[in-house]
Amino acid sequence: MKYPMLKWAKDLFPICRSLAGPGNRKTLKYFFKLNKEFKIFKFKSGTKVFDWKIPDEWSVKDAFIQHSSGKKFAEFKKNNLHLVGYSIPVKKTISRKDLMQKIYTQKDQPNAIPYVTSYYNKSWGFCISDKEKKKLPSGSYKVVIDSKIEKGNLEVAEAVIKGKLKKEIFFSSYICHPSMANNELSGPVLLNALMLYVKDKYPKNNYTYKFVLLPETIGSIAYISKFRKILKKNVICGFVLTCVGDERGYSFVNTPNENTLADEAILSSLFNKKNFKRYSFKDRGSDERQYCYPGVDLPVCSFSRSKEYPEYHTDKDNFNVVTQKGLEGSFEAMKDIIDAFELGPYPQNTKICEPQLGKRNLYTSHISQKGIYKEEMYTRKNLLAYSDGKRSLFKICNLLKIPLKKIIGQYNILKKNKLLK
Amino acid sequence: MKYPMLKWAKDLFPICRSLAGPGNRKTLKYFFKLNKEFKIFKFKSGTKVFDWKIPDEWSVKDAFIQHSSGKKFAEFKKNNLHLVGYSIPVKKTISRKDLMQKIYTQKDQPNAIPYVTSYYNKSWGFCISDKEKKKLPSGSYKVVIDSKIEKGNLEVAEAVIKGKLKKEIFFSSYICHPSMANNELSGPVLLNALMLYVKDKYPKNNYTYKFVLLPETIGSIAYISKFRKILKKNVICGFVLTCVGDERGYSFVNTPNENTLADEAILSSLFNKKNFKRYSFKDRGSDERQYCYPGVDLPVCSFSRSKEYPEYHTDKDNFNVVTQKGLEGSFEAMKDIIDAFELGPYPQNTKICEPQLGKRNLYTSHISQKGIYKEEMYTRKNLLAYSDGKRSLFKICNLLKIPLKKIIGQYNILKKNKLLK
Amino acid sequence: MKYPMLKWAKDLFPICRSLAGPGNRKTLKYFFKLNKEFKIFKFKSGTKVFDWKIPDEWSVKDAFIQHSSGKKFAEFKKNNLHLVGYSIPVKKTISRKDLMQKIYTQKDQPNAIPYVTSYYNKSWGFCISDKEKKKLPSGSYKVVIDSKIEKGNLEVAEAVIKGKLKKEIFFSSYICHPSMANNELSGPVLLNALMLYVKDKYPKNNYTYKFVLLPETIGSIAYISKFRKILKKNVICGFVLTCVGDERGYSFVNTPNENTLADEAILSSLFNKKNFKRYSFKDRGSDERQYCYPGVDLPVCSFSRSKEYPEYHTDKDNFNVVTQKGLEGSFEAMKDIIDAFELGPYPQNTKICEPQLGKRNLYTSHISQKGIYKEEMYTRKNLLAYSDGKRSLFKICNLLKIPLKKIIGQYNILKKNKLLK
Repeated sequence: MKYPMLKWAKDLFPICRSLAGPGNRKTLKYFFKLNKEFKIFKFKSGTKVFDWKIPDEWSVKDAFIQHSSGKKFAEFKKNNLHLVGYSIPVKKTISRKDLMQKIYTQKDQPNAIPYVTSYYNKSWGFCISDKEKKKLPSGSYKVVIDSKIEKGNLEVAEAVIKGKLKKEIFFSSYICHPSMANNELSGPVLLNALMLYVKDKYPKNNYTYKFVLLPETIGSIAYISKFRKILKKNVICGFVLTCVGDERGYSFVNTPNENTLADEAILSSLFNKKNFKRYSFKDRGSDERQYCYPGVDLPVCSFSRSKEYPEYHTDKDNFNVVTQKGLEGSFEAMKDIIDAFELGPYPQNTKICEPQLGKRNLYTSHISQKGIYKEEMYTRKNLLAYSDGKRSLFKICNLLKIPLKKIIGQYNILKKNKLLK
Repeated sequence: MKYPMLKWAKDLFPICRSLAGPGNRKTLKYFFKLNKEFKIFKFKSGTKVFDWKIPDEWSVKDAFIQHSSGKKFAEFKKNNLHLVGYSIPVKKTISRKDLMQKIYTQKDQPNAIPYVTSYYNKSWGFCISDKEKKKLPSGSYKVVIDSKIEKGNLEVAEAVIKGKLKKEIFFSSYICHPSMANNELSGPVLLNALMLYVKDKYPKNNYTYKFVLLPETIGSIAYISKFRKILKKNVICGFVLTCVGDERGYSFVNTPNENTLADEAILSSLFNKKNFKRYSFKDRGSDERQYCYPGVDLPVCSFSRSKEYPEYHTDKDNFNVVTQKGLEGSFEAMKDIIDAFELGPYPQNTKICEPQLGKRNLYTSHISQKGIYKEEMYTRKNLLAYSDGKRSLFKICNLLKIPLKKIIGQYNILKKNKLLK
Repeated sequence: MKYPMLKWAKDLFPICRSLAGPGNRKTLKYFFKLNKEFKIFKFKSGTKVFDWKIPDEWSVKDAFIQHSSGKKFAEFKKNNLHLVGYSIPVKKTISRKDLMQKIYTQKDQPNAIPYVTSYYNKSWGFCISDKEKKKLPSGSYKVVIDSKIEKGNLEVAEAVIKGKLKKEIFFSSYICHPSMANNELSGPVLLNALMLYVKDKYPKNNYTYKFVLLPETIGSIAYISKFRKILKKNVICGFVLTCVGDERGYSFVNTPNENTLADEAILSSLFNKKNFKRYSFKDRGSDERQYCYPGVDLPVCSFSRSKEYPEYHTDKDNFNVVTQKGLEGSFEAMKDIIDAFELGPYPQNTKICEPQLGKRNLYTSHISQKGIYKEEMYTRKNLLAYSDGKRSLFKICNLLKIPLKKIIGQYNILKKNKLLK
C-alpha cells in the first residue's frame, strides 16, 4: 500500500482541532501538501448559514487545574481532551466543591477521559477520568484556561478532480475533533488516499470526483448553504467517511429512502465483509445528517468500520483502535466503488442473446460436461445476463450476491472482449 | 375519561336490533341525544340497491316454546338471542322431533346461546345452549312467535362535522345486532365518543369528519349506493369500528392494497400495543367488505381490539368482555389519529439542513457528551429528519418504529418552535 | 389421461439427436404426426445468427473402441451417449495411454456414463463409466468413429394455434439430446400434449398459442434472430418446458425482474405442490437464458419438476426417472394456466359492493351462524373481493394463497352466475 495513512494520522493526532481556529488551519495545510487541489472557502464568524451562525475561532495556549499543594491536574498540554471544547478564558481560585461542578467524567468508563464540548453555550470545564476525579484532594484549586474566542473564519477545504463527465462522486470527512484517532483522523486520511488513488490510477477519469474536509455539522451546513444547487445538480453518489480506521467490522448508514446509487454501491462493496452491518438513516450520526436532510436530499451514505465502539469520544480512541490494516480495508472498499464508476456503472450487453464464449476462450472448459465449470464462469455469465444497461453494476452485485470486487474482475474481461460496454 | 361509553352500551344492550325495525330506530334516537348532527336517511323496503333489495322491517312482541307441561323455553323476553333473526310469525303445536329441526345450538360451546339469523330466506327458529337442548323433555310443544315482517324503512344515520378542508376522515359502525356487547355496541359508542371529542377539542377543525351508523352489509351497501361519488371524492382515511370494547389485543384489517393513508395511520397508532395483530384484507369481516370492494375502493381499514374471540356471536358477548377500560384504549388509538390529522398529517421542515436546537432550548443537555441525551431528543431529531412534506406523520412513525402518540408530542413542540409546519 | 406422453417418449428415446442432423429431423417428423400445425424453419449451416454461426449437421453410423483382443467398448450402437457429441470421424489404432486422454467419465458417479459434447471445438472422445474405464485392459486399441460433419440445416419447428386475440401464450422445448428421458424428451412430449389439449378443449380459443421445438441455445438463438419482433409484440406469457417428467418436486425459474405474467401464473399453479421450489434467474439453465436475455426480454419462465437431480446428463436419466404420472403432474400444472387464460386472466366484478350470494344459492348455508360455512365459500367471496379487473387471476391466487386450480373452480361458478366477467 503506497498511501501511508497511518503515518498521516499520527502526524495530525496532537493538533487541537475544533470548529474554527489555528488547529483546523494547521490540519488543512498538512493535507494541502498531499493534494494541491484543495481550495479553502472561508466563512466569517457571525455569518448566518441557514438556521445557524458561524462561530468565532477558538484557540488555547494552556489550561490546567492546580491544587493548593501545587499539584496540577487535567493538563491541556498533556492531553487536549482535558479541556471542554470552546471553554472561555478563566483564571481564578475556587473551592473543591465548586470545581466539582466543572469536571466531566464518563461514569460508565471510569478510566477514560471523555470528549466534551460546549460550542454554542458559553461555558468552561475540564474532563478527567472518573477514577481521577474521585481522588482529587480537598482544598482550593486554581483554574487556568488561557484560551481566546475571537472573530475569524471557519474554513472548509474542497478539491475537485474534473472528469469527462460533470456527474460527481462525492467524499466528505470532518476535521473538528482534538486528539482522537478513529472518530476523526481516519476519515480525512482515507479521503486523501482516495484522492491520490484517483489521480494515480485514472489520469483520464470519466467521472468528476469531489472531496471536502470541514468541521462536522456547522461546516457541512455552511458548505451546503454555498453549494447546494451545484451539489444537487451533479452529485450522483457520495460518502461521508467516519470511523474508518479500525479492523472490527464494516458498516454504512442508508439514505432515508434507501434507494440511491450510493446505497447500492456501498452495499455491493461491503455485504460480504466480516461483521457487516447496515444501519437505517435513523442511526445517522455524521454529516449525512445534513447531506440527506429534507431540502438537501443528496445521495450520500455514511461509511464506517465499526460505527459503535466503546472507545468512541474518549481518550481511548487512539492507535490501539486505528491501524494501517484497518485503514487499508476501508480504502479497498471505497476503491472498488471508484473502479466500478470508471469502468462504467451501467454495463450493457453488446449482443442480443448470449454471446458465444467458447470462440473467445471465455469458457473454463473446451468440452461441455456437468460439474466441470469454475465459479468464475458463472459470475461471468451472470454478469452478462443481468447487464441490460439499466441496472447498475452495484445492483447486479446485490441481486447476484456477488461482491463488487469479483464482478469488477469479470467486467474487465468482458469489456476487453467487447461483450459489455 | 369524560365519555361514559360503557354506560351508553349498557343502556342500549337490551334493545332487539336487526336490519330494520323499531329496535334500530330506538338505538339511533339514543345516539341522536348524544350528537345532534346525526341525520337519518331512509331506504324504503323493496328498493333496489346495487345487487340487493332493502328488506322489510322486522318486529317482535314475544316468542317462546312451551312444553305440554307448561314449562317455557327459549323465551325472547329473557334473551332476544333465543329467536332466530327475522323469524316469521308462528303459532302452532309440534312434536319434539319436529321442534328439534328448528333449534340451533353451538356444539363447540355447549353452554352458549348462538346468534343466528335468516334475513333473506323466510324461516324461523330458536337458539338455546346445546346443553339445554339435550334436556328438552319429550312431548309436544307449543311454538309462539309473535313477530311482524312488514313494509317500512331501513335507516342509516350520518353526521358530518365540517372542517376548513373538504377532505374527510370517515368512521362507520353498525347497529343490527341484538343483545351483544362487543360485536355491536362497542363500535357505535366509540364512534359517538369520537364525534364528541372532535367537537370538544377542535371547535375549528381542519378536516371534515363523517360518522355513520347503519345495519351491517345491507346498510353500508344502501349508503354507498346513495353516496359513492361524494365518498370517493372526499374520504382520504376511514375506519370501520367493530369489536372495540375488550381489553385483550389490538388489531386492524388492511385495505386490499395495504398502502392507503388509513393503513399507515392505524398501523402507526397500534403497532406497539400489546397483542397487536395486523390482518390481511382476506380476513375482512365487517363493512370494510363494502367500502373496499372493487368499484368502491375507499381507503377504509377495520379497527378491532380482539377480532377473534370465543364469545363472538353468542350470549357470552356481554359486559364480561366489554369494559370501560377496553373502550378507552380504543378511544385513545383513534383519538391519536384525529390529533395527527388536526396537527397536519404531512409535516414539513421549515429549515434547510438541521435547525439549531440548542438556541431554542430543545436539546436535553447544554453540553455535548456521549450518552447524556434523553430518548425524546432522538425522537425529536428523527421527526425533523424525516419531515419532508411528502411522508405522512403516520409513515414516519412506521419508518422510525415510534408510536404515533410519542411523535405527536414532539410534533407539537416543533410546531410551536416553527421548525415544522 | 388421453395423451400417452410416456409412450411417445419411449418411442423417441433411441434416436441420436444433436444440434442438427438426421436424428433431429426424425424426432420432428414424429411430432408432426401428432400435431400437423408444426412448420419447419431451416437455418443453413454457416449462417450468422447474432453472435453465433449455424453449425454443420452431424450424423453417426457407428462408433466403438476395440481392444487388440477383439473386445469392444463404448459401443455407440448400444448407447449413443458413449460417443462425445459432434465427434469428428476417426479410424486409427492408439495405445491405451493415448486412449485415456479421450475417455470421459463422471468421477463422482462411477457407475454412470456421462453426456459430453464438443459442439464448436472440433474434437472426439468416448464416454464410459469410471468403473469401466479403470478396467480397460492394457494393450493397443482400434478407434472407430464413422461420423459425418457436413453442410446442411438446423431445423426449428413452430406451431401456432390462432385465437381471437393476437396475444400469445408461448411454450418452448428442445430436441438436441441423445438417449436421455427427463432432460430432453419429457419437455417435447408435454408440449405436444398441451397443444392437443388446447385444440380438444378450446376449439374457439381466445388466446393464440405458440409451440416451438428447437435445439437448445443455438436453436433458440436462431429462432429469436428470425422472430424477435413478433415475439416481443405478442407473447404475454411463456414457458420453457425442461425436465418435467419425474415425480419428485415442482419448480420454476423466475424471469430476471420476477414480475411478469408468466412469473405470476406459474407461481399460482405450483406454490402449494409438494417440494415446490422457486429459483432465481441466476439459476437459469435452458432456453430461458435466451428468451429473457437483455434485448430479448420476453416474459418466459422455465418450468421443471426437479431441476437438480443426480441422474442429470448421464445414462441414468431414463424411464426410472420419467413416468406417466410425473408427466401428468406437469400437464396439470400447465393445463390450469391455459384454462385460466381461456376463462379470462383479469376477472372483473359485475357488481358494485358485494353481490347477494344467497339469492343465487351460492351460500353454503341458508342461515347465518358462526362456523357453518365451507371453505369453498370463502374462496368464492375472496375471489369476488379481489377481482377488480386489474389483478390477474394468478396474482389473486398468490395474494390469497389459494392454488390456481381451486380458484378456477370458483371462477367458473361465478362466471356462470354473471358475477364475474
